[in-house]
Amino acid sequence: MSLPAIRHYLQFSDFTADEYAYLFRRAALIKKKFKTYEKHHTLADRTLAMIFEKASTRTRVSFEAGMYQLGGSVVHLTTGDSQLGRAEPIEDSAKVISRMTDLVMIRTYEQEKIERFAANSRVPVINGLTNEFHPCQILADLFTYLEHRGLGADGTPDPEALRGKTVAWVGDGNNMANTWLQAAEILGFAVHVSTPSGYEVDQAVAGIRSGDSYKVFKDPMDACRDAHLVTTDVWTSMGYEAENEQRRQAFADWCVDEAMMAVAQPDALFMHCLPAHRGEEVTGDVIDGPQSVVWDEAENRMHVQKALMEYLLLGRIG
Amino acid sequence: MSLPAIRHYLQFSDFTADEYAYLFRRAALIKKKFKTYEKHHTLADRTLAMIFEKASTRTRVSFEAGMYQLGGSVVHLTTGDSQLGRAEPIEDSAKVISRMTDLVMIRTYEQEKIERFAANSRVPVINGLTNEFHPCQILADLFTYLEHRGLGADGTPDPEALRGKTVAWVGDGNNMANTWLQAAEILGFAVHVSTPSGYEVDQAVAGIRSGDSYKVFKDPMDACRDAHLVTTDVWTSMGYEAENEQRRQAFADWCVDEAMMAVAQPDALFMHCLPAHRGEEVTGDVIDGPQSVVWDEAENRMHVQKALMEYLLLGRIG
Amino acid sequence: MSLPAIRHYLQFSDFTADEYAYLFRRAALIKKKFKTYEKHHTLADRTLAMIFEKASTRTRVSFEAGMYQLGGSVVHLTTGDSQLGRAEPIEDSAKVISRMTDLVMIRTYEQEKIERFAANSRVPVINGLTNEFHPCQILADLFTYLEHRGLGADGTPDPEALRGKTVAWVGDGNNMANTWLQAAEILGFAVHVSTPSGYEVDQAVAGIRSGDSYKVFKDPMDACRDAHLVTTDVWTSMGYEAENEQRRQAFADWCVDEAMMAVAQPDALFMHCLPAHRGEEVTGDVIDGPQSVVWDEAENRMHVQKALMEYLLLGRIG
Repeated sequence: MSLPAIRHYLQFSDFTADEYAYLFRRAALIKKKFKTYEKHHTLADRTLAMIFEKASTRTRVSFEAGMYQLGGSVVHLTTGDSQLGRAEPIEDSAKVISRMTDLVMIRTYEQEKIERFAANSRVPVINGLTNEFHPCQILADLFTYLEHRGLGADGTPDPEALRGKTVAWVGDGNNMANTWLQAAEILGFAVHVSTPSGYEVDQAVAGIRSGDSYKVFKDPMDACRDAHLVTTDVWTSMGYEAENEQRRQAFADWCVDEAMMAVAQPDALFMHCLPAHRGEEVTGDVIDGPQSVVWDEAENRMHVQKALMEYLLLGRIG
Repeated sequence: MSLPAIRHYLQFSDFTADEYAYLFRRAALIKKKFKTYEKHHTLADRTLAMIFEKASTRTRVSFEAGMYQLGGSVVHLTTGDSQLGRAEPIEDSAKVISRMTDLVMIRTYEQEKIERFAANSRVPVINGLTNEFHPCQILADLFTYLEHRGLGADGTPDPEALRGKTVAWVGDGNNMANTWLQAAEILGFAVHVSTPSGYEVDQAVAGIRSGDSYKVFKDPMDACRDAHLVTTDVWTSMGYEAENEQRRQAFADWCVDEAMMAVAQPDALFMHCLPAHRGEEVTGDVIDGPQSVVWDEAENRMHVQKALMEYLLLGRIG
Repeated sequence: MSLPAIRHYLQFSDFTADEYAYLFRRAALIKKKFKTYEKHHTLADRTLAMIFEKASTRTRVSFEAGMYQLGGSVVHLTTGDSQLGRAEPIEDSAKVISRMTDLVMIRTYEQEKIERFAANSRVPVINGLTNEFHPCQILADLFTYLEHRGLGADGTPDPEALRGKTVAWVGDGNNMANTWLQAAEILGFAVHVSTPSGYEVDQAVAGIRSGDSYKVFKDPMDACRDAHLVTTDVWTSMGYEAENEQRRQAFADWCVDEAMMAVAQPDALFMHCLPAHRGEEVTGDVIDGPQSVVWDEAENRMHVQKALMEYLLLGRIG
């Protein structure tokens, strides 16, 4: 019997629309069981290695608590001052760690590092954020959107509800923006992007086949017009702190405020992957207002990641 | 059905005498099961988030090992260089973390921080030490006292045995001293406090209603006279290292030695929350002598905290 | 009924040949169950405290994942800037930690520290690496050798296969070398050591009774001649970084290359405890070549340590 090939989750485009439909349904089931304290130990006796080159509370807690809820365990590794690949070649680390654990989550800088790790790993590798992509966050965001605006007849999230919808991305053309572009191409919605000059998205970096799934707007108001979801991120992501002052000036007009929300669809949602800086990329009125679903979004990281880990190790269930 | 209100444990005065009587009995049962390797998984599938702004071996091990013994799991978060509330508002952290975990333990500086966290948390919050209070330690100390000097007819700890007793607090008017004052008021014993000038306890900070439960003595010998329990702490607690030299001079006469133990009750116990500096706040003769119960005290942190976590999540059992 | 005395594993000489025979058989069974996802929860409800004064990925993951596979849990303590014994006497730490956990693994500098800890511990203590010894690594190396070259008639590792064999140690006369000398004396094989001048093994530090089990060679080629296993380590172990440049010069000729492997037995194995520096202590040709078993060796750390932890807590099973 030959083993199935190992699947990794290194960018959003690693999965098909059909696989996402499965994952959203599965995450809904897993979340429901969590809310009713129903045991769901599908990954008993499995160990997740988490490797952090960038600190993170949210990614840390969501993966770690999620793995425990699946009955598994976690080894949490930080690289401290030394970067992955300095004490020993990444390839060697991958070979060793994947001999002892069942699954690896990596939060690092260059996408290339996680790809080299995955190429040498015996077990699935998950992208917990790189400079280029943040697929787990978009997975959570889409699930959260469907939970609020796209439940099917049977009460479970139906990604068909995304077709024809518009997501407004306001701010940095960063890993989140790149991943939104990938998701739009796969799931059939549109992304309206508005970034300051010099911080544009780059289709080549985003790794999408065509430009059909997104439109670029100079004015963030135009990007938000008629959007079903408005979303943004901090002006200065981790690793870019040196550019902080320059970015504050460049991004001054890219603050999601009530005026932007007013031109979006009346029932538009607001999302933010957190942590948020009120008064910078978003006003308190918006993030703490009735259209904001940021706390659901944060919690859903955990539930979609449970569905993801389960899928990578066990395939489809039921 | 409406859910019961969330209970937190932020200071000793959060619980009643009756609740403490329950907790001491429960801790005794839990300890007995631990000693006989009897499984006690009342918190299976529950996750404790531990947030440390101050490093700690004892608090860390006692909560973490304790949670495992209850069948649960732990996410251990340190704030590193950045303080709680700097990367994002405490309120946001509380909302996110309490969406993903079942219980939160925080060791931080200002009591106000833990209160803001609790006010925004969906799950119970435990004070694992603040500048103002250390309720888990006093819970352990009282349990340890009862274990040695206050077992009821049925062999379980009976807090009635505390009534009329005297605890001598020698040294810094710190979080431990404040918590002793609260405990005395609730459980009906007296605290005799002797601190160097400038390090007095402050009734307002201690948050007690009246001054009836404690007496202040200039000379530590007078505080120890006829005491049933003599206890002290390091001269310089974490966070006050800059005052170290000044404190060494001010506290020179506040060293618990055999002379102090000699004026206490003949069967008086000695306690210290550790780590201890022999030759500073206590002599080796005393801490390593026959009246010292410091190792039991350390172990009991774990058992009373198990009872506490169980109570906060499940209420009274049996 | 009196409890059996606590056993520690502080150096290789703490166990007899007969005990090693048991451990190798047991590790083989445990590894087999791991490979077939068969549950093996012999240490359910037991907690391992891991204390790291030196950082380590391999020791960390192997002990932590191993303990989870045994159904147990782990508390991971790092000493940060402060060394074990600075915040409080080692004796006090040992008393406290061993009250709350079932087993302690320590990675530190001086062997004397781990011995003082063990002398004050109520629970077994394991040496996870000291300046003087690294018994868990040699346990893994011997198991790996037997797995490849010493399976008995019943398919399990038989340490009798080690008798009369020769292990070539090329490089630093360090903790690995010392432990090889102890293992050779106990299990009846020979170690051929070649170190640069100034980095010799010291029989007194190695703590062996006679010099019969090892021979010293000036030229590493001579040490490798007819060897059944060739093994080495980085030129500069952790804690000796200040000597780095001096060591690079002294060790230049102690690089295990194809010429050295060519004079060894035709079926000789190559091992390295990792991380490796290709081009320094070993060439890429050798470590990535057909005689290298370094990835098995790394994985086997986990399996032999599971057998070890089980043995220290439960004694012989079956």
